[in-house]
Amino acid sequence: MAEKFISPRNLRFLLYEHLDTVALTGYPYFADHSRETFDMAIETGMRMGKGILFPALAEMDKKPPEFRDGKVFVHPVAALVMKACGDGGWIGAQAPYELGGQQIPNTVMTAFRGIFSAANYSASVYPFLTTGAAHLLISFGSPELVETYVPKMFAGVWQGTMALTEPQAGSSLTDITTTAFPQADGSYRIKGQKIFISCADYESTENVVNLLLARIDGAPPGIRGISLFVVPKRRPDGAGGLAANDVTCIGIYHKLGYRGAPITQLALGDSDDCRGWLVGEPHKGLRCMFQMMNEARIDVGMGAAAIASAAYYAALEYCRQRLQGRPVAGKDPLAPQVPIIGHADIKRMLLFQRAVVEGSLALIFQCASYVDLSRVTEGEEKERFELLLDLLTPVAKSYPSEMGILSVSQGLQCLGGYGYCDEFPLEQYYRDVRIHPIHEGTTGIQGMDLLGRKAVMKDGKAFFLYLTEMEKAVAAGRAIPECAPAAEALAAAAETLKEVTGSLTGLALKGEVELFLADATLYLELFGTVAIAWQWLLQAVAAANALAGTPAAPDIPFYRGKIHTCRYFFAYELPKIRGLAERLKESGDGITVAMQPEWFE
Amino acid sequence: MAEKFISPRNLRFLLYEHLDTVALTGYPYFADHSRETFDMAIETGMRMGKGILFPALAEMDKKPPEFRDGKVFVHPVAALVMKACGDGGWIGAQAPYELGGQQIPNTVMTAFRGIFSAANYSASVYPFLTTGAAHLLISFGSPELVETYVPKMFAGVWQGTMALTEPQAGSSLTDITTTAFPQADGSYRIKGQKIFISCADYESTENVVNLLLARIDGAPPGIRGISLFVVPKRRPDGAGGLAANDVTCIGIYHKLGYRGAPITQLALGDSDDCRGWLVGEPHKGLRCMFQMMNEARIDVGMGAAAIASAAYYAALEYCRQRLQGRPVAGKDPLAPQVPIIGHADIKRMLLFQRAVVEGSLALIFQCASYVDLSRVTEGEEKERFELLLDLLTPVAKSYPSEMGILSVSQGLQCLGGYGYCDEFPLEQYYRDVRIHPIHEGTTGIQGMDLLGRKAVMKDGKAFFLYLTEMEKAVAAGRAIPECAPAAEALAAAAETLKEVTGSLTGLALKGEVELFLADATLYLELFGTVAIAWQWLLQAVAAANALAGTPAAPDIPFYRGKIHTCRYFFAYELPKIRGLAERLKESGDGITVAMQPEWFE
Repeated sequence: MAEKFISPRNLRFLLYEHLDTVALTGYPYFADHSRETFDMAIETGMRMGKGILFPALAEMDKKPPEFRDGKVFVHPVAALVMKACGDGGWIGAQAPYELGGQQIPNTVMTAFRGIFSAANYSASVYPFLTTGAAHLLISFGSPELVETYVPKMFAGVWQGTMALTEPQAGSSLTDITTTAFPQADGSYRIKGQKIFISCADYESTENVVNLLLARIDGAPPGIRGISLFVVPKRRPDGAGGLAANDVTCIGIYHKLGYRGAPITQLALGDSDDCRGWLVGEPHKGLRCMFQMMNEARIDVGMGAAAIASAAYYAALEYCRQRLQGRPVAGKDPLAPQVPIIGHADIKRMLLFQRAVVEGSLALIFQCASYVDLSRVTEGEEKERFELLLDLLTPVAKSYPSEMGILSVSQGLQCLGGYGYCDEFPLEQYYRDVRIHPIHEGTTGIQGMDLLGRKAVMKDGKAFFLYLTEMEKAVAAGRAIPECAPAAEALAAAAETLKEVTGSLTGLALKGEVELFLADATLYLELFGTVAIAWQWLLQAVAAANALAGTPAAPDIPFYRGKIHTCRYFFAYELPKIRGLAERLKESGDGITVAMQPEWFE
Repeated sequence: MAEKFISPRNLRFLLYEHLDTVALTGYPYFADHSRETFDMAIETGMRMGKGILFPALAEMDKKPPEFRDGKVFVHPVAALVMKACGDGGWIGAQAPYELGGQQIPNTVMTAFRGIFSAANYSASVYPFLTTGAAHLLISFGSPELVETYVPKMFAGVWQGTMALTEPQAGSSLTDITTTAFPQADGSYRIKGQKIFISCADYESTENVVNLLLARIDGAPPGIRGISLFVVPKRRPDGAGGLAANDVTCIGIYHKLGYRGAPITQLALGDSDDCRGWLVGEPHKGLRCMFQMMNEARIDVGMGAAAIASAAYYAALEYCRQRLQGRPVAGKDPLAPQVPIIGHADIKRMLLFQRAVVEGSLALIFQCASYVDLSRVTEGEEKERFELLLDLLTPVAKSYPSEMGILSVSQGLQCLGGYGYCDEFPLEQYYRDVRIHPIHEGTTGIQGMDLLGRKAVMKDGKAFFLYLTEMEKAVAAGRAIPECAPAAEALAAAAETLKEVTGSLTGLALKGEVELFLADATLYLELFGTVAIAWQWLLQAVAAANALAGTPAAPDIPFYRGKIHTCRYFFAYELPKIRGLAERLKESGDGITVAMQPEWFE
């Protein structure tokens, strides 16, 4: 089996050459850090990934969680990972010192989480879902709630979750009916049901801390009546111990992939004894939850890119070793067969995978850096980073998720029949990666978010800031002969994006809201393809600059590969926006809107 | 669980409105048939599909074949299906009366096989792989071989297979090493190994008849030294019984999907007692095998389209029933939620699925009709049908296979989280359909076949005949106002196809063979998209003509849906050729060819 699942060389490229993560150490919050501490995080992540997570990948798939006698039993590696991450301080690494954190930049921890996700996506979810839930508590919870829950979560002793979905309200959060009844002591009695909640119950954790959306009894209808609560599986009993909190797991799902983590169905307050505590202000829970959701969405993009990375390296290894066929130009049947990596079509499939994997990672790291920068800056600068992050979050979630599926599928295809069999890991990656366009908001929801909200918010301010970022990349590319053609192509693509956006918002201005949003998913696809082109140009510029200096000999093929993959992306992937733009300029024809349900036969 | 897996209404549309299958009965070979006998075949197929195959779909997936003590045990439904098809005469239905057949057109049996594939792809493989093997024997085997094997195969008592692949020679048939040593009695002693052979061993069949490629001892190297043999698992013992033939199953594969059929690994002649009999002339086995391969390739396309059909109907049912969200234009949270089929993005996903499913089926039926027509015509007319069939076979194999994956994926996406869980059938369809771009020649191989062989054979004669077919469709479309825009778009797309083909063959003429073929897979994708546009225009013309007559009331939404899906295809799918054409016109830049294996990191 392939040993490589992610490239530490590429992670260092993203942190130090594509981005300038070390520059963050100039800000007080990150002042104790240095390239050395960042490198140490990567090395530790790789050691844990290789030592703990990756060896359990296939076994966690073959022995998924079991639900017996009302209890959920998961693979023992889950507890090992939680303990190792808790002991090492990795769950709370980004938090302030005073809360037990290490003030490590999010960009660096994105690399760390990426290593985990590539090694074993299911196993990575336990600690880093806990991170997201703890961050949410820190942002909006009372000091008492923070003190009660966060240290145990950072220590890996208690599992964190986010609990949104209900049976009657999947993507439609407006329709949440779980209810919170105020109690005299300031707490709430919770009653309701949640479905599809990752890691919300399993025996090998001491407690589960659910960050949960519910409606305070009598709250206004719609999303303006939703509040955020912390609803633990076991609540503090006031005597330093824990008591059952009437949160019952009533079942787990049997899934296509992502089988190492239990996805649970929860009944809350069946015995009228489930307590929750308000986080943030009443009726403003959705706004709070979006902090965690946005973190989680970028992590979902990362999860997809990471699985695609592992699939790419498994395919690459196979293609280097498998002998089959001969060069097209010299088909002497007596000549020995060649490794299939010599065939143009195989190289195309590998270039596609590398383009998707490293392009996606670059965009995700770019977004991660905006998180860090908005934390340490103020005023207009801070707003700029926040707006760019808001705009790009649905893209960083969806492009890797959708294209990750195609990338893994091409990896599987490289192996032919063997790719379809479980003696190679591709078939598992193919199943695992399929979750990502679904969880944390489907691709359809991300499209509506991007076009209906993000692209037009503040009169398009975020959108225009983004265009400025692309212009900077174009200018940098034009200055380097090897990158100039890509720079011109990106400038043209940005123009296309502008035209399409203008054409669609024109529909909105005419009050044609349904037509405006009907093709939002395709808009997201076009937007994402251009964003990845932007990131590839930036990577090619960094690689060309490195080659123009005095690169170490082993780095030369790496940089050449970067530049060549950029060429591939601009020649093979970017042209896909042609057809999308042609369609999106005609969205006013309302073909999907006009389709009558009874015409489907 | 959804009850519908294919539309008999659409099958009748394809047979009688898109094509004129009844006209075949004007030829002597089909003279005993009529629309009534064709309808009866469809009805019987539906009854068997609903009664035998579909109910076993999930169970055959959950209880895959087992390999114990050197024996292969499969689900009992496999034997039921073989017996029912044998008893009903469906395995040999297309063969001449004197060989026990019923002389039913291939087009009608394509519908029959499609029903089976949609109901349960794995189960459908047992009888119809047998059909393909028997047809091959009939075409090239000696009368004695035909007499020995075919009746038992048609009766469903013996299983047929095709055995090509070897460990060291996957797609590279040149490298087959299984050897046949001539014996005094005219038979051959066979020695070698075969892998990935569907249904080549299981306990509930009396015998397995492998149509197998091997090299006669001392044969010339390369594909010009490959011969075709029949190598049964048990050979006739000369006394009316059967004796073991030293064909040993040494293992079966554990697969992502398609789990109801055993895929075996065979050792031949380990005890030097495996006998084979030559089929056709020595060293010309590959040409013979291509008859079965071509049939099988179109059946693979059908299998993919059929699975996508079943997934589409499962998704459609869910979207009609699932309440979630509200119309974009009136988001009153107190209003009741609507069925998600009311949302434009869901309709887009369903239209995509219908466009892929019914577009693919139309092309497959078109090819099936060429098989029938080339059987009953002579001279130039026959050559025309043969050339069109040759040209379109890789397309009819690949477009449904590649797009079927995306179609099923969109079906899964329609169900959100439920699509990922095994309480709905989508996740199984998603696994099952992934085999099709792999078996019977990968998509990469089909691209090389289309561009490197079919498009250029006989100085492009097949290609120009195909352009003529498209011109006819354009003319028919132009005559109907509702179809005229699509007709113009198809004319332009045909022009694009011509330009791209010219540009690529220009590279070949310059001797740049590797550059010529480097993007053959993308050429196949472009070619396929245009071919499906052609088929959608033809379907829309048939539907518009029906509406212009006096359609039965329940047929009106069906026809309107056809025309609207055609509009969808031309607005959303056909524009994808823009980006492909842009790339293919630049294939001379050799980006993939120039990529150095060591640049992959």
